[in-house]
Amino acid sequence: MSEALRGNLGVGANMTTISVDAMGGDHGPEAVVGGCAISARRNPDIAFLLHGDQSVLTPLVARESVLSGRVHVVHSPGVVSMDDKPAQIMRRGRDTSMWSAISALRDGQAQAAVSCGNTGALMAVSMLRLRKLPGVHRPAIACLWPSRGAHGYNTMLDVGADVRADEESLLHYALMGSAYFRNAFDVACPRVGLLNVGTEDHKGRAEIKEAARLIADAAEVGRYTFVGFVEGNDIPSAHVDVIVTDGFTGNVALKTGEGTAKLMGDVLRAELEHSIFSKLGALFALRPLQRMKKRLDPRLANGGVFLGLNGTVVKSHGSADATGVSSAIKLAFTLAQSGFQDRMAERISAVSDALQERVLKAAADPATAPLATPDRPSDGTEQA
Amino acid sequence: MSEALRGNLGVGANMTTISVDAMGGDHGPEAVVGGCAISARRNPDIAFLLHGDQSVLTPLVARESVLSGRVHVVHSPGVVSMDDKPAQIMRRGRDTSMWSAISALRDGQAQAAVSCGNTGALMAVSMLRLRKLPGVHRPAIACLWPSRGAHGYNTMLDVGADVRADEESLLHYALMGSAYFRNAFDVACPRVGLLNVGTEDHKGRAEIKEAARLIADAAEVGRYTFVGFVEGNDIPSAHVDVIVTDGFTGNVALKTGEGTAKLMGDVLRAELEHSIFSKLGALFALRPLQRMKKRLDPRLANGGVFLGLNGTVVKSHGSADATGVSSAIKLAFTLAQSGFQDRMAERISAVSDALQERVLKAAADPATAPLATPDRPSDGTEQA
Repeated sequence: MSEALRGNLGVGANMTTISVDAMGGDHGPEAVVGGCAISARRNPDIAFLLHGDQSVLTPLVARESVLSGRVHVVHSPGVVSMDDKPAQIMRRGRDTSMWSAISALRDGQAQAAVSCGNTGALMAVSMLRLRKLPGVHRPAIACLWPSRGAHGYNTMLDVGADVRADEESLLHYALMGSAYFRNAFDVACPRVGLLNVGTEDHKGRAEIKEAARLIADAAEVGRYTFVGFVEGNDIPSAHVDVIVTDGFTGNVALKTGEGTAKLMGDVLRAELEHSIFSKLGALFALRPLQRMKKRLDPRLANGGVFLGLNGTVVKSHGSADATGVSSAIKLAFTLAQSGFQDRMAERISAVSDALQERVLKAAADPATAPLATPDRPSDGTEQA
Repeated sequence: MSEALRGNLGVGANMTTISVDAMGGDHGPEAVVGGCAISARRNPDIAFLLHGDQSVLTPLVARESVLSGRVHVVHSPGVVSMDDKPAQIMRRGRDTSMWSAISALRDGQAQAAVSCGNTGALMAVSMLRLRKLPGVHRPAIACLWPSRGAHGYNTMLDVGADVRADEESLLHYALMGSAYFRNAFDVACPRVGLLNVGTEDHKGRAEIKEAARLIADAAEVGRYTFVGFVEGNDIPSAHVDVIVTDGFTGNVALKTGEGTAKLMGDVLRAELEHSIFSKLGALFALRPLQRMKKRLDPRLANGGVFLGLNGTVVKSHGSADATGVSSAIKLAFTLAQSGFQDRMAERISAVSDALQERVLKAAADPATAPLATPDRPSDGTEQA
């Protein structure tokens, strides 16, 4: 943040500023400003740049006394809608709150950015404005998943930045995901698993078998433990922290988990409302049910993190309420404070160099491990 | 079934015989014979060929009086274990109960087959012994998924026969899945959706966009309605009956759904056992909880159906108990009675001919829709 702006916000040098896109969520700027207020009450070291229509935002901010002197509204009249295509926004989105929020991060006025808006557009604007970390081919989106583990959450990536991933991208996801988990949950050596249709070595697609070799080889540099292949039912397992997969599979798995949880919740609610006895039961079971809901509450795990960019961007769910927005802000704050971006970039660069060296070595001496020619079966038929 | 065998079983001409692999499940032949007994009590028109070790099976069958005269034990000493690789069984599995069960189906001694054994081996043996339906490139495994729809279940395929599927395979899955759903639930015109990472036309991988065009075009021949792209959270939706996807994504989604349901069930149980009050609540809530469990009980939706083969094979879950086995047998019986295989083969052949014609037309007149050159972006980067 510039000195002038810091003076303007009236905050000290040890404050962390989050750049927040206040528009574009399903519940509008009220939920976003409400989320900022919750975070501000809990955390005295946080300040905000709030991007959006000044005439809408200023009165909302004025209602929350805790935000007084800790929010600077940056006027940006345009709004990215959920239907806007990424390419449209990249060409004509300079006046939008999303563009403004990411630009402030790029210009060093904030240490992390949060948006509830259109995921595709946010990734496109973030790539354009922040650029990829050196060595990263494709950024990824990492989500948090309620788990049986000690930290209550596992992380999975990619959940939708890119519909394809080759073996090297999957390796980068392992490095980025473990860096993220290490810093979000203060775990020295996260356990990484690669999502597959079975845990035996012969299962899955060729690029996944090759990725397993690369991820195992890079475990020391990446400071993670590789637990091998994991399956869909292992995503909430206590035996893994970071689940690596391509963005197509990850996105389907994430939404399948959400859909299953919603179906179970709805069926349970319908059954509990079924009769007087059930209602009485529901009354007694209310607190356990609420505790369950809280433990699995998607609002508390709100925040898909964009990894592999020069800057920390947290994508909050479009339907997030103030509590959800506040969770996303907390995550952005934690990551901004950890400064993990630089160390992650170093590791990716080290692994990329080592890979490059192996390829050159293999070219000079064909007896070396054939990195360039993974064992794809010729007829395309592979048993799951 | 041969006349001699029918006489042997003492059953009438209107009986349907199911060929059952009695070995290889987690709960052993007791659960399988128990499942046969449940089915026999409920359905007077069912008889069984039971394949496995005669010295084990004969006493188990003798304990169930309802099976008297309705079961013929076929001695086959070998057992396929869960660790056996498909290729091993194809080479050296002729003495196994699985091989024997599929062979009896091939030889017309039964109208459908059921096995709790190793999925990969069962698919390999089924492909080898039954062969693919004319026109089908790759068989698929279809599962049932608890849903909000009128029938209580949707179906999804492929959930693990093959880790890849091109656009033509996805089209075949639409034809096979709708034929299956039509006959399993007596629905004239099932609604087919194609699993993707978003519902907008520009989302997803190139082969999925091309598959969407092919599936839309074949709706009339296939007697289904195409509802377009669906997402992971739509799998249990009331707006779709058949969800089409490749075997990698389908397998991950299926196991993710199972894992999420198990996590929620476990957390709910733990919370209900938390205190005296919670336990009291649990007591009152017992019946609604049991009703929920029953409605979502995976045992009642037990049975992955192999589609695209010359014969109906139902893969029961390895961990199925007698109730689960009985559900798989019921499904096999329903499909065997419907005789849907022949009509499905006709439709696939008609659609394959039409596709072939379009390719030839396009080659003669390049102005026609470029079926042979789907719009794959050149740099491999596609936005989810």
